[in-house]
Amino acid sequence: MARYVKYLESADDGTRFDADQMQTWHNRRPLWVRYDLEAVKSQLNKEDLKNRPEVMWRYRELLPVGDDIQPVSMVEQMSPIVDCPTLAKELGVKRISVKDESRGPTNSFKCRGLAMATTMARHFGAKKLAMASNGNAGGALALYAARAGMESIIFMPQDAMIANLVECKMSGAQIYRANGLIDECGKAIRKGHDDGLWFDISTMKEPYRLEGKKTMGLELAEQYDWDLPDVILYPTGGGTALIAMWKAFQELAEMGWLTTPRMPRMIACQSDGCQPIVEAYKAGEDYSQRAENAHTWASGLRVPHSLGDFMVLDALKASGGQAVGASEVRLEAWQQRITSSDGIFICPESATCVGALEQLVESGDIGADERVVIYNTAAAQKYVESNNSEVPELKLEKIDWASFSS
Amino acid sequence: MARYVKYLESADDGTRFDADQMQTWHNRRPLWVRYDLEAVKSQLNKEDLKNRPEVMWRYRELLPVGDDIQPVSMVEQMSPIVDCPTLAKELGVKRISVKDESRGPTNSFKCRGLAMATTMARHFGAKKLAMASNGNAGGALALYAARAGMESIIFMPQDAMIANLVECKMSGAQIYRANGLIDECGKAIRKGHDDGLWFDISTMKEPYRLEGKKTMGLELAEQYDWDLPDVILYPTGGGTALIAMWKAFQELAEMGWLTTPRMPRMIACQSDGCQPIVEAYKAGEDYSQRAENAHTWASGLRVPHSLGDFMVLDALKASGGQAVGASEVRLEAWQQRITSSDGIFICPESATCVGALEQLVESGDIGADERVVIYNTAAAQKYVESNNSEVPELKLEKIDWASFSS
Repeated sequence: MARYVKYLESADDGTRFDADQMQTWHNRRPLWVRYDLEAVKSQLNKEDLKNRPEVMWRYRELLPVGDDIQPVSMVEQMSPIVDCPTLAKELGVKRISVKDESRGPTNSFKCRGLAMATTMARHFGAKKLAMASNGNAGGALALYAARAGMESIIFMPQDAMIANLVECKMSGAQIYRANGLIDECGKAIRKGHDDGLWFDISTMKEPYRLEGKKTMGLELAEQYDWDLPDVILYPTGGGTALIAMWKAFQELAEMGWLTTPRMPRMIACQSDGCQPIVEAYKAGEDYSQRAENAHTWASGLRVPHSLGDFMVLDALKASGGQAVGASEVRLEAWQQRITSSDGIFICPESATCVGALEQLVESGDIGADERVVIYNTAAAQKYVESNNSEVPELKLEKIDWASFSS
Repeated sequence: MARYVKYLESADDGTRFDADQMQTWHNRRPLWVRYDLEAVKSQLNKEDLKNRPEVMWRYRELLPVGDDIQPVSMVEQMSPIVDCPTLAKELGVKRISVKDESRGPTNSFKCRGLAMATTMARHFGAKKLAMASNGNAGGALALYAARAGMESIIFMPQDAMIANLVECKMSGAQIYRANGLIDECGKAIRKGHDDGLWFDISTMKEPYRLEGKKTMGLELAEQYDWDLPDVILYPTGGGTALIAMWKAFQELAEMGWLTTPRMPRMIACQSDGCQPIVEAYKAGEDYSQRAENAHTWASGLRVPHSLGDFMVLDALKASGGQAVGASEVRLEAWQQRITSSDGIFICPESATCVGALEQLVESGDIGADERVVIYNTAAAQKYVESNNSEVPELKLEKIDWASFSS
């Protein structure tokens, strides 16, 4: 199979870059990977996909890899669509589904971007990969770098989750807890890159993580039989996956693969403890301001400023979507709502989507006949380290059996 | 599709029981589900499977469900086979693979048994399901019961993992931490069952969890193109999954689906902090003695006595396998070995398999030309609650850049 990448293109000013060598960013903003979609269309049919393994690499014509590039992979299965019939009934919405990214090799959606980014970095000869991360991305980098036999260096904020720190330690990564938020860690990682110490594989600082995350949109389209859902609720930290999904839908539309011209409304969901995209959306701005004093239990949303802010805001506008803030203090309640109604234990980031869903149904922005998808971006079990209170103790020798009768 | 179940059969004395009503156990020992394998064989071809979704229900003719029984399901995907080429090279073994059960809906293999058990319990009219659990099974019960709209009551030992306690709390289960190990909790749950308070869905106390876990073996056979691997290393607590896999292989053999008569050697791996099966195997006994003072970080292996002990020991003997104890104090080192070599972060239970593998390669019991499979029974990220030490801190304003040069 040939590689269908034509060139890289600055999302800032459209400058083109050679895709046959490693690139990073331009004007401190990300690069798009552009494909020869006509050629892809002439070579690939929807039917071809049915005979391929149910993994993210099934869309290889729409990805940066060709036959000559061996993926760094731990079997990245397509994440399933799990319906929530009880919640849908309670809210009076036709269909609510979770696309469950907790099923990946590192139990978060980050495996997709890092599988692709480490694949391309290795292809282009990088040996040491470094990243600023709130947690799940760093853990995924550490594990994929170990898989690839590469070194990794990761800076995380001091309140990073234990699960992520341990992923890094077990992998043999160089992991540090730093006294700053992710954007501040990112500046230090970039300095190391500029000084030639390592390759900076932080989000938006190289073009391929976004392409890996694009498979979250390609899969969705195929799983919905190329008739995309009406509304997508996405927990938005850096926003790479939201941007990537929107890119996937554009590419599929250009190829004529979607059965209707209607696009999903993209809803960026944030905690009100850190909601720069919500603020910028409300103010009608094209770029976001840094969120000061950012704090949220949903570590993936603790992103005061994203390099892709304008790309997220563009996607929201182009899709007729919006950005919605959800109350930090209600995250656990929303998590509990969907877990107890339909058995799906979603992570705190995705709990913001349940909050946004409640708001948008109440306001009429989501209608009764719509099909809604929430992305669960990670296994909630990674976030429980401090939640040990309130489980009653039981003395086996003196159980009050009557208390169990009903 | 018809249901191919013929009857239930006591694993203790062969007494048959009606499969059209709810059954529990007999002589305090488990029941087997027996199928009309001739009928299955005449109705189902290997080729038929290729057109079915890649979920555990694809083997429905070999499962207790028929068309009339709606599964309680959250999309239980086939768990992938992830090869470990670096570890294989280091140990000098042809192929070492992990069958990664961390990809299930509750991030452990327990989803398979509980999906099946809650399905059958609901079918037979149960409303309240109760269980003794070391953690992952209880979490899975809580989530599947929530999905099914049923009540659940779970007793866990006091040192149960936070991740599992939170799964239960979020699901709306009645969860208690009790002052006893799992077998002691199990006796209390059984008393509640006998008193009519609930249905006891603890492992081996009803016949269907085992059938759900049987899909771990059916999948493996299909993934190895019906030519089973030479050695299976399985972390053995209660041992239901090991028994279930062995049953799967027998059924496939009886149907003539396996391409060779050679069966895998089944290796039961335990921590030396709790190794009743290892002791019984070494002593040549048919049943195990209760392990006193059982302690292991690998919570799933903290099973002092299993009702299925004789079935595990039978499978080990029949397969030419053995039971191997691995040092409790080296679990983290083995976990780190495979995580750093191949990027697969396995749980502490499965770390015993890496320890056993080292021993068996060293002793020559596993040969250089063999294909070895290790089951990773859960996401390691569930086990990290107390592992916060030793991550160095970094002051962003005074990074020692020279320390990163190499």
